[in-house]
Amino acid sequence: MRVLRVALAQINVTVGDLTGNAAKIAAWTERARSQSADVVCFPELAITGYPPEDLLLRPSFIDDNLEALNEVAKATRDITSVVGFVDRNDDIYNAAAVIHDGRVAGVYHKRFLPNYGVFDENRYFQEGSEAPVFEIAGALAGVNVCEDIWYQGGPVQEQAHGGAEVILNINGSPYHRAKHDFRERMVATRASDNAVFVAYVNMAGGQDELVFDGGSMIFGPDGELLARAALFDEELLIADLSLDAVYQYRLHDPRRRKERQEFQRRDGAPRILVSTEAPPERAPAQSRIAPPLDPVEEVYRALVLGTGDYLRKTGFEKALVGLSGGIDSTMVACVAVDAMGADHVVGVSMPSRYSSEGSIADAKRVADNLGIELLIVPIEPAHAAYVDMLRRPLESETGVWEENVQARIRGNVLMALSNRFGWILLTTGNKSEYAVGYTTLYGDMAGGYAVLKDVPKTLVYELARWKNRSAGREIVPESVIEKPPSAELRPGQLDTDSLPPYPVLDPILEAYVEDDRSAEEIVAMGYDEATVRRVMAMVDRAEYKRRQSPPGVKITPRAFGRDRRLPMANRYPN
Amino acid sequence: MRVLRVALAQINVTVGDLTGNAAKIAAWTERARSQSADVVCFPELAITGYPPEDLLLRPSFIDDNLEALNEVAKATRDITSVVGFVDRNDDIYNAAAVIHDGRVAGVYHKRFLPNYGVFDENRYFQEGSEAPVFEIAGALAGVNVCEDIWYQGGPVQEQAHGGAEVILNINGSPYHRAKHDFRERMVATRASDNAVFVAYVNMAGGQDELVFDGGSMIFGPDGELLARAALFDEELLIADLSLDAVYQYRLHDPRRRKERQEFQRRDGAPRILVSTEAPPERAPAQSRIAPPLDPVEEVYRALVLGTGDYLRKTGFEKALVGLSGGIDSTMVACVAVDAMGADHVVGVSMPSRYSSEGSIADAKRVADNLGIELLIVPIEPAHAAYVDMLRRPLESETGVWEENVQARIRGNVLMALSNRFGWILLTTGNKSEYAVGYTTLYGDMAGGYAVLKDVPKTLVYELARWKNRSAGREIVPESVIEKPPSAELRPGQLDTDSLPPYPVLDPILEAYVEDDRSAEEIVAMGYDEATVRRVMAMVDRAEYKRRQSPPGVKITPRAFGRDRRLPMANRYPN
Repeated sequence: MRVLRVALAQINVTVGDLTGNAAKIAAWTERARSQSADVVCFPELAITGYPPEDLLLRPSFIDDNLEALNEVAKATRDITSVVGFVDRNDDIYNAAAVIHDGRVAGVYHKRFLPNYGVFDENRYFQEGSEAPVFEIAGALAGVNVCEDIWYQGGPVQEQAHGGAEVILNINGSPYHRAKHDFRERMVATRASDNAVFVAYVNMAGGQDELVFDGGSMIFGPDGELLARAALFDEELLIADLSLDAVYQYRLHDPRRRKERQEFQRRDGAPRILVSTEAPPERAPAQSRIAPPLDPVEEVYRALVLGTGDYLRKTGFEKALVGLSGGIDSTMVACVAVDAMGADHVVGVSMPSRYSSEGSIADAKRVADNLGIELLIVPIEPAHAAYVDMLRRPLESETGVWEENVQARIRGNVLMALSNRFGWILLTTGNKSEYAVGYTTLYGDMAGGYAVLKDVPKTLVYELARWKNRSAGREIVPESVIEKPPSAELRPGQLDTDSLPPYPVLDPILEAYVEDDRSAEEIVAMGYDEATVRRVMAMVDRAEYKRRQSPPGVKITPRAFGRDRRLPMANRYPN
Repeated sequence: MRVLRVALAQINVTVGDLTGNAAKIAAWTERARSQSADVVCFPELAITGYPPEDLLLRPSFIDDNLEALNEVAKATRDITSVVGFVDRNDDIYNAAAVIHDGRVAGVYHKRFLPNYGVFDENRYFQEGSEAPVFEIAGALAGVNVCEDIWYQGGPVQEQAHGGAEVILNINGSPYHRAKHDFRERMVATRASDNAVFVAYVNMAGGQDELVFDGGSMIFGPDGELLARAALFDEELLIADLSLDAVYQYRLHDPRRRKERQEFQRRDGAPRILVSTEAPPERAPAQSRIAPPLDPVEEVYRALVLGTGDYLRKTGFEKALVGLSGGIDSTMVACVAVDAMGADHVVGVSMPSRYSSEGSIADAKRVADNLGIELLIVPIEPAHAAYVDMLRRPLESETGVWEENVQARIRGNVLMALSNRFGWILLTTGNKSEYAVGYTTLYGDMAGGYAVLKDVPKTLVYELARWKNRSAGREIVPESVIEKPPSAELRPGQLDTDSLPPYPVLDPILEAYVEDDRSAEEIVAMGYDEATVRRVMAMVDRAEYKRRQSPPGVKITPRAFGRDRRLPMANRYPN
C-alpha cells in the first residue's frame, strides 16, 4: 500500500521579509522532516509574502527573492518541499518550486491570475502554460497555485488526466465572512470530480487590510475531509494519504478513462522526477480535523489577527484608543487587548461640554473591565479657544463646524500622544459610518488602523454580545449595548437624527456596496424609495472621505479600499 | 481625388455623467456636420467618461450607457461618428461604435487592455479579437482604441493589411511630463510603418488624479504631422485627407505587398459598410498645427486643468488655501486663481508664536499680487490651550508633538472654514515632502485636493519662476523664492535640518520612486550611500501617511496613489 505523508505548513510570513520568511520556511521544513513527511507545502509566494504589490516591479526584489529561494533549497534534505516564490524567465511568474536535496527539481507557473476584488495579478505576472506532474517519493503530484483550483477545466483536471494522484495547491487566500465554508465545499468537489487527493495549504496572518485565515485542508478522492488546520493560527497539518484509493474511483468510471485517454493523446502533461525514495518505516501520522468556529467568533478572530499583525509587522508595541463610552470604541479596545495584551493598550477619555455623565462612566468601566490604563484629557480648553478664534471668520457662534472641531480636537490630542510615545492610534469608525460619511475627517477618522472599518454597525452589536458570552462575564457593559448610538457633539444628539436606524441602513448598504444593486432593485427588496436614494447618494458623496481613511481589516466580500475602486468626481446615477 | 474630411472632437467629459456626455457628443457631432466632415471621432469611453472604474461592475451602469449611446445614435444624421462606449455581449468590452444615420453600423472591441500604472482594464473588460475595416464615405477606415496603437503587430497592422487607408484611434490617454512628444513620435512611426493616415483623438480634462491632455493629431502615410489640436483645451480639429497618397507608399513596397497578401490569405479583416455617400461640394477644411508648449508651462497647465476640473466636477465653487508665505502654498494659490478666478479663492494666514514677520508679510503680498481675499486667524489661543491640556499626559513641555499640534490646529481651522462655507481646502504639500513623510497627517496634509502632490520641490521653483516670467510681473515675490524652505514650527527651523538639500533629494527620489532603482544603482549615480539609504527608508516608512493623503494631479510618469501600489507592512529591503 503506497502512502504519501503530506505536511501543510500554514505559516505567517511578512511581505518583503525575504530572509525572515526563508528562515521560517527552513525551520518548518525541518519540523516536517522530523515527523517523517515525504513532502511539505508552503503557501503561495511564501518567500516574498503576499501580496508584494509593486515591490515586484523592482528588479532587485526579484533577484533577492531568487537568492532567498536558493538558501531554502540548500537547507532542504531528506524531504521534498513545495515553496511559493517569484520565478523569472523572460518574464516574471507567480510560481511554486519543488525542492529536493538541495536543488530545485521543477517549477510550476500559476495559470489563472486573479485580477478582481483586491487582486491585481495581471499587473505583474505572466500566465503559466503548463500543468506538470511531479513524481515525489513514488507518488504522482500535481502542484498548482491558489486561483488555479477554482476552475474545473484548468490545471487540476489536466494534472489528474496526466496521472496525478494528489494535487498540492498552495494559497494566499484572504478571509471574508463564510468564505472558508465556500472554499471547503469547492475543494471537496474538485477532489471528487477528479478522483484525486487535494491538499490545500493557506497562509495564516494579517497583511495590511487582508487576513489570511489558514484553514488548510486535505480531501480524499471521494471528496471526504481528511484533515483541517485551525483558522487564524499557524499550524503544521500532517496526514497520510493512501494513494491507491484514487484508482477505486478512476477504474470504474469509463467516461473519465475516455477523457483521460483523449487528453494524453492530444496534450499530455509533462512529468518531472523529484525523488524516488521509498518512505521509511514510520508510525501512522496523527492528523486532525479542527472544529469549525461560530460565525461571529470567526469575524472577531479575523479582527484580532489583522490588527495584531499590522501592529507587529509595522513595529508598534502599544496602541491607543479614544474611549467614548460608545460600542465602537469599546469593541476596538477589546480587539486591541486580545491582539496585544492589556499592558499594550491605553484608553483615552476626552470629555467635552456635551459629554454625558453616563458615557464618561462607561468609558471608565470598559477600561476597568479590560484592565487597561485610562488617560483623561478634557477638551474644553481647546474647544473654547477654537470657538473664540473662529467666531468671527466663521460668522457664526455654532453649527456643524463646531461638531467637527470637537472631533478634530480629539484627533489632535490622540495624535499628539501617538507622536510623543510612538503608540499607534486605532480608529473606531465602523463600516456603516464610513459608507455614509457619518464621520469627521481628521477627527474620529484619524489613526493608523481602523479596526472596524469593514464591520457594519449591526455586526458590531453581535460582536459585543459574543464577547460577553465567550468571556463568561461582562466585558462590554450592558449600558453600552443598550444606549441609543450618539456622537455626543451637541446636546441630545442621536445617530438617528441623521441616519435611518442601523437595521434598515445596513441591508441597504450591503445591497449597494457589496452587491452592486440598483435603486430599483433595493426598493424591490422592501425598502422605502426615498431612504434608498438618500443612502446611495450619501455613499457616493463620501467617497472622498474614504480615500483618506486608514486601512482596516477586510471581513466582508467587498471592503472599502482596493476592493472597491470608485471615482470621486462621478455623476452616476444622474 | 478621394478626400475624407475627418473631425476629431477633443472633448471634456465627466465620469458617470451619461446624459451630459451624450448631449455633448450630440452637440459636437452637429458642429462637425456643419463643417461638412465625413466622420467625427470622440474619445475612448466618451459616453461613460474615463476611467469609470468599479461603476463598470454595476449592471445598471452598463444598461444606462447603452441607452445613452442609443440616444446619440438617434441624433446622428448625415455624418458618421465614432464614439467610445461600453459594449455588452456575453462579457463587457471597451468599445468604439461606428454610427451613421440613426444606427450603430458596427462596433470595434479594444484588443490591448492596459493593466499597469494607473490602468486596471483587465479588472473589467474582455479583450476583443477582431480588426474590422469600416467603409465610411468611400474611405476604408480602421477604428481602434488607445493602447491598440502602441503595438506594431496589433490591430493597426491588421487593419492596414486589410485595406485601411486611415486609422481612427480614440483615446483616454492621461498626461505626464513630456508624454505628448513621445506619443507624437510613436504615432508618426505607426503611420509611416503602415503607410496609412492616423487620426488620433484624445480627451481634454481632469478626472480625479488624472489629466487628459488633448493634443489630438493627424499624420499622413509618410509620418508627416498634418494637424495638431491644443493641449489641455477642448477643440474640434478638422483636416482633409487625400486618401490616394496612401498608395504612393504602398505600391512601391514589395515587402509590404507580400505581407499583406499573406495576411489576406491567412486571416483577412472583416469589412463593414457604414456609408457610401459621395462627399458634397465643399471648400477645403481649415486645419491647424497648434504650437508646442514650454515644458514648465505644460506642467502648470496640467495643474490648472486637473485642479479646476476636480473642483467643477465635484461641485465646488470656491477654494481655500492656507498661505504660509512659503513657495508651495503660493504656487497652490496661483494655480487655484488660474483655475477658478481670483474671486473664487480665499487665502488664510494662520500665524503662530514661531511665524516670522517676513512670512506673514509674504502671505499678504501673495494675496495682494493675486487679488484674493485673505483671512487672518492667529492660532495662539488654541496653541496655548493644547500645550496646557497636554503637558501632563505627554510628560513634556515641548517636542516634535508640539510642531505637529500646530500643523493640526491649522488643519482644523481650515477644515472649519471648509465645513462652514462649503469651500474645498487645497493642500499645499509637494511630492518631495510626501515622498519622505516631511508632512503632518491631519495637519498640512488636510484637504480635498493636493495640487502639488506629484510636483518635486525643485520643479515647484521652476514653476514659480515661469509664473513670474509669463505674467510679466512679480506674482511670486522674490523673497518667497529666495528664502530657505522652513516649516516654521519651532524657532529657526529649516527643512535642511531634517532633509538633504532638494537638488540632492529630488534626483534620489526620482530614481527610487519613479525608476525602481536599487540603493546600489543610485549610489552609482554619484550620491552618498548613507544619504541614499536614509532617503529610501524615509520613503518606505511614509507609505502609511500617503495612503491617507488627498488626491492630486499626476504629472510624472509615476505618481503616488494608484500608480504606485506598495504595502505598508513591508520589510524590504531587510
